[in-house]
Amino acid sequence: MEREEILKEITIKNDSKIVLIVIDGLGGLPYKGKTELETARTPNLDRLAQKSICGLSDPVFMGITPGSGPAHLALFGYDPTKYILGRGILEALGIGVEVGEKDLVARGNFATFKDGKIIDRRAGRISTEENKKICDLLNQNIKEIEGVKISLFSGKEHRFVLKLEGDNLSDYLTDADPQKENQPIKYTAPLKEEAEFTAKVVNQFIDKAMQVLKGSYPANTVLLRGFSKLPDIPSMQELFKLNPLAIANYPMYKGLARLVGMRVIDSGQEIDSGFKILKENYAYYDFFYLHIKKTDSYGEDGNFEEKVKYIEKVDKYIPDVLSLKPDVLVITSDHSTPALLKSHSWHPNPFLLYSRNLIPDNVKKFTELECAKGMLGRFQAINALSLMLAHALKLKKFGA
Amino acid sequence: MEREEILKEITIKNDSKIVLIVIDGLGGLPYKGKTELETARTPNLDRLAQKSICGLSDPVFMGITPGSGPAHLALFGYDPTKYILGRGILEALGIGVEVGEKDLVARGNFATFKDGKIIDRRAGRISTEENKKICDLLNQNIKEIEGVKISLFSGKEHRFVLKLEGDNLSDYLTDADPQKENQPIKYTAPLKEEAEFTAKVVNQFIDKAMQVLKGSYPANTVLLRGFSKLPDIPSMQELFKLNPLAIANYPMYKGLARLVGMRVIDSGQEIDSGFKILKENYAYYDFFYLHIKKTDSYGEDGNFEEKVKYIEKVDKYIPDVLSLKPDVLVITSDHSTPALLKSHSWHPNPFLLYSRNLIPDNVKKFTELECAKGMLGRFQAINALSLMLAHALKLKKFGA
Repeated sequence: MEREEILKEITIKNDSKIVLIVIDGLGGLPYKGKTELETARTPNLDRLAQKSICGLSDPVFMGITPGSGPAHLALFGYDPTKYILGRGILEALGIGVEVGEKDLVARGNFATFKDGKIIDRRAGRISTEENKKICDLLNQNIKEIEGVKISLFSGKEHRFVLKLEGDNLSDYLTDADPQKENQPIKYTAPLKEEAEFTAKVVNQFIDKAMQVLKGSYPANTVLLRGFSKLPDIPSMQELFKLNPLAIANYPMYKGLARLVGMRVIDSGQEIDSGFKILKENYAYYDFFYLHIKKTDSYGEDGNFEEKVKYIEKVDKYIPDVLSLKPDVLVITSDHSTPALLKSHSWHPNPFLLYSRNLIPDNVKKFTELECAKGMLGRFQAINALSLMLAHALKLKKFGA
Repeated sequence: MEREEILKEITIKNDSKIVLIVIDGLGGLPYKGKTELETARTPNLDRLAQKSICGLSDPVFMGITPGSGPAHLALFGYDPTKYILGRGILEALGIGVEVGEKDLVARGNFATFKDGKIIDRRAGRISTEENKKICDLLNQNIKEIEGVKISLFSGKEHRFVLKLEGDNLSDYLTDADPQKENQPIKYTAPLKEEAEFTAKVVNQFIDKAMQVLKGSYPANTVLLRGFSKLPDIPSMQELFKLNPLAIANYPMYKGLARLVGMRVIDSGQEIDSGFKILKENYAYYDFFYLHIKKTDSYGEDGNFEEKVKYIEKVDKYIPDVLSLKPDVLVITSDHSTPALLKSHSWHPNPFLLYSRNLIPDNVKKFTELECAKGMLGRFQAINALSLMLAHALKLKKFGA
């Protein structure tokens, strides 16, 4: 029996509540001898760690730097090496595009084409308003190609989502994006024979879009990447009998949450509102995923100091969360984003689980090195969900 | 290559001896700040821990509370998610019923039926003597149904095992047991088409048994559950070239041991006799599994104090075991049974391995938290057997 089958069989529904706070990109690397988390003053997290069990989790397996997709899937209890998510799917779900089983989606950029070359892959980062107008124009002029329905959904600045609806669409396609500037237009190519028809439709769309956008300089061409279809993924309701709520702001995380069946409430940009929404909705769900983005953004920017300050901000809200008396509270991250690397990394995530039903270990502070001393040891993040369910007494015995 | 294949290929036979002591349900949760194991005075176990390598083991995977079946299989080196054992099989093997490849077995209860309802699922816990008489009566009156041979084997109090021998028997059957009292008789139902014939035979048996038992109030009906057939499981001799002896008292553990090819000697109810049998038989086997049950029973009863006392009792026998000079001695548990939860739990097992061939780690006491600091870290229990074999120098190199 696979992990998923086992959990499906032994999960029970009860009234206990689980709160999972994901501080995106939390783990770091030392600058002047201390990581971001070691530098930050986090009295509340430290006190909580002393009453919890701690460990270090690897999102996929040791050494693997995950994207947000696999990293979150693991935390939600899904094997990230089994459920492979296309970037197009995540983007589409994130901006609220309904994607059906047969549909194909891709991430798009409006770009600038001049003298036979792509000279700006982001069309000078046109305004979101301008983007909407261009999407409308394309939607009016290109409704169908070879029996396949075409729709564009505008995103922020130069970004959009392309959706194709029809029969026999395949996502075995290369990106229609040269990735670098000063390159000619790049069409998509089929990676399997079954994708030949789809490639033809997509490439006709690119040509038609360029005709329609002739007067729309600098947004006069489109780049398409991450062609993908919906993966066949069971919901958290189905697998774990949970009634989950996601509180997040960025499209990617909202999309991931919807994909596994969570209801989603936008947390807004401010840290305050996410915690407020948690409190207001605490009565109505039994699993809460609260996503905190800015630690990752500061990490990606290489801004050590601001990442530290943001961790300190998060720390101030811990007593509020504890006042809700969750049966299980997990504080961790999807992946590390050390400011020194300015990118996601493979370093394991500090992980803390607080509940009544445990032996608090000897971890004194919520830091990478202290978590390494915890009772959970070093473990794969896919165990996070079974640990949460167990401590919430939501799992029956396996076998007699 | 799977783990099992690898071990089969590299195991060698030699004279070294392995002793595995399973203190059932050993791990606990803190009461007045200390777990059962932390509360117990265990000078011998603590001294041994100082000379050993320690860790915490998860029987199945993190968060999973195992039944005794999966938990023991893992300790014996079998993947508990691959070999799924029916409760009927365990019970049958435990009371010494020979089960053939085609046979189907189930656990049975004698119960009390009155005014169209089951009013006592245990027939007032009739005596074991009474049980034997009723089984004889049924065996004399119901020998065969639709070409399928029927036999009953009496267990303790109200319990028995039903064995069906014939062709095309299937275990895809629901329990014929309402689980609660004051419910009508529940017949079995087939879960797959292939089980329709078997369901018919079982339900006829229930009707016939009720006719035969008309005058046997309060034991006037039968409940049947855990229909199961023998899993196809290789023996420890075949896989690991071991000549194993099990010393246990309860049917379940004796059954598990027989299933993987161990010879079984009943340890009796007293702790003393188990250790005595180990000593007497030490010359004749190379792997000894000694099962100690009462720690689990006290845990299940929620009796923290008695569990503590029993751990202290076990501690006194450690010098006796060491005087046998085993090449490898492992002391651990199949699963935790915290008195505070009154049930099996998902908490990992304290694990200690003593041998000449190791670097003693800095574990000072044999407790959950101290074991967490050990060199074995947190690991899956299926590794226990390869660790024992390795330290007993029973494994060749894997690969050239």
